Amino acid sequence: MIDILDKTSIATRFQALQDDICRQLEVADGIGKFREDSWERPGGGGGRARVIEGRHIQKGGVNFSAVHGAMPEKIGKALGLEQADFFATGVSIVLHPKSPMVPIIHMNVRYFEMSNGTWWFGGGIDLTPHYVVPDDAVFFHQELKKVCDAHHPGFYPEFKKWADDYFYLKHRQETRGIGGIFFDRLNQKSRGLEKAALFDYVLAVGHAFAPTYIELLQRHKGEAYGEKELLWQGVRRGRYVEFNLVWDKGTKFGLDTDGRTESILMSMPPVAQWIYDFQITEGSAEAATQSYLRKGIDWVQ
Amino acid sequence: MIDILDKTSIATRFQALQDDICRQLEVADGIGKFREDSWERPGGGGGRARVIEGRHIQKGGVNFSAVHGAMPEKIGKALGLEQADFFATGVSIVLHPKSPMVPIIHMNVRYFEMSNGTWWFGGGIDLTPHYVVPDDAVFFHQELKKVCDAHHPGFYPEFKKWADDYFYLKHRQETRGIGGIFFDRLNQKSRGLEKAALFDYVLAVGHAFAPTYIELLQRHKGEAYGEKELLWQGVRRGRYVEFNLVWDKGTKFGLDTDGRTESILMSMPPVAQWIYDFQITEGSAEAATQSYLRKGIDWVQ
Repeated sequence: MIDILDKTSIATRFQALQDDICRQLEVADGIGKFREDSWERPGGGGGRARVIEGRHIQKGGVNFSAVHGAMPEKIGKALGLEQADFFATGVSIVLHPKSPMVPIIHMNVRYFEMSNGTWWFGGGIDLTPHYVVPDDAVFFHQELKKVCDAHHPGFYPEFKKWADDYFYLKHRQETRGIGGIFFDRLNQKSRGLEKAALFDYVLAVGHAFAPTYIELLQRHKGEAYGEKELLWQGVRRGRYVEFNLVWDKGTKFGLDTDGRTESILMSMPPVAQWIYDFQITEGSAEAATQSYLRKGIDWVQ
Repeated sequence: MIDILDKTSIATRFQALQDDICRQLEVADGIGKFREDSWERPGGGGGRARVIEGRHIQKGGVNFSAVHGAMPEKIGKALGLEQADFFATGVSIVLHPKSPMVPIIHMNVRYFEMSNGTWWFGGGIDLTPHYVVPDDAVFFHQELKKVCDAHHPGFYPEFKKWADDYFYLKHRQETRGIGGIFFDRLNQKSRGLEKAALFDYVLAVGHAFAPTYIELLQRHKGEAYGEKELLWQGVRRGRYVEFNLVWDKGTKFGLDTDGRTESILMSMPPVAQWIYDFQITEGSAEAATQSYLRKGIDWVQ
C-alpha cells in the first residue's frame, strides 16, 4: 500500500514509472537510447516526451505529463462538469517494432482530479500483433489477469471487455488487435476501493508493461520475414492510424483542445500503407490473424 | 443551360463526368488503366468505384455514387432535419502522384435531395502540392476563378475562403495545401440562382478538374527528385491522412454511418510517414512550402 496520495506524489510515482520503463526498454533494444524533450504547457504544467529509434523498436514513445489549470471548456462539457481547475498526470506509451513478427503495444496510466475534489484513475494496455500468435495472446492476457486479480476479482473480466469494445474499428468491423484491458473513472465511489488500493493497482498495471512486452519481443525478434510480411505490417499499421485518428477519444480530445501535437501523435507508426481493397489469401497467416481481430475471444479460459 | 433536372438526370450527368475524367486521366498517365468495382448499398442505390495505379498517378480514385433510402438517424440529426427519404449523388476524386514534384489533388461534386423537397449542391477542388510552386498556385486559382466568375462574381472569393477554412489542420496550424474552392448547401434560396444555373456551375467545376490537373502533371512529371524529396512527400502524405481522418467531415460521416469503407478511404495515400518532431531546414524548399501552408493567401490579385 502507498501512503502518500496527493497529486504531486502520484505524478512523482508516474515519473519514476517512466524512468523505469525507459531503462528496461533500452536494455531490451540493445542499441536505441531515448531522447528527451521537456515541454511546458502554456496553461500550466508540462511533460517529458521520450522517443526511441532503436534496433528492435523502430519508433517508440514513452511520455510523462503533469498538467493543470482551468478546465478547457470543451473538456468540461464532454465530462459534464462545472467550471473548475483540473490536474492531470499520466504515462502514455506506444511502441512500433521494426519486425512485423513483433507486436505493436500501447500502455497508458493516468490520474485526474479537480478543484471540487472529484478524482479518478484510468488506463490500460492493449496488444496489436501484426501476426496473432495464440500462445502469445494467452501469455499476454494471463499476465494482465494476474495483475488485475491481485487487486479485484472483477477487474479482469470487466476491463478486458472494455478493451474489446474500446479498441474497435467500427468501419472495418475489426478490433485493433487482441485487446487487453481498458478502464476509466476508477474511484472509491465506483469501485468501493480506497484511493491507495486503486493507485496500487494502476501502478501494478504500469509495472507489468515492460516485462510483458519484452518477453514477446524476445520471443520473436529473431524470426525471419520478407516482403510479404512487411507489406502486411504496412497495412496493419494503416489500420492502427485509422483507429487512433478516427476512434481514439484521447487522440481526438488532445488534437481538439490544443494538446502537444508531437506528443499525441507519437503513437503514429513510422510508415503506414493503404492498398485499395486489399485481399487476404485464404488459409494464409494473414487470414488467421484477421480471424482473431474480433471481440469476445476468451484467451484465459 | 441544362433542361432536365430531376435527380436521375443529375446522377446521369455525374456518371458521364466520371467517365470523361477517367478517360482524360488514362491518356495523361499513359500506362495506368482504371479498374472498376460496382457496389450496391444495402439501404438503396450504389456506385462505381474506379481506381488507377499508373506511371504518374501512383494511387488514384475516381468514384461515382448515387444512393437513396431512409435518412440515417445520425445524418438527419447532424443536418437538423426531420425523418425523410434522401437521395445523394456525386463524384469524388483523390489522386496521389508518384512524384513528389507533382501535387496531390482532390475534387468533389455532389447533389442531395430529400422527400420533403429540400435540395442542394456541394463540392470543391483543392490542391496539395508536396512543394508549393507559386506559378502553379496562381494558375490553379486562376482556373478556378474563371469557372466561378462565369457563373457568379461572388463565388470565387466566397468559396476560396471557405476552402481555406475547411482544408485546415487545426492541430498543426497549417492548411492542407494551397486551398482552392469549397462550397455546400447551394440552392435557390441561398444563392438566388435557379437550380439549372447552379447545376451548370457544379458541372463546370467538375469539368475544369481534369485539364487543370493534367497541366500541372505535365509541368512537373519529368522533374528529378531523390531521397530528400521522397521523405518530404512521406511527411506531407502523413498530414494528408491526418486531415482526412481527423477533420474531414465527409470522411468521418461516411465511416460513422456505415458507408463503403474502401471507397471512402480511397483518399488515403499509398504510403505515409510520421517522424517525431520533424525539423525543416531553414531556407530549404521544404521551408518555403511550409510558409505557404496558411490561410488567406490571395493567389489571383
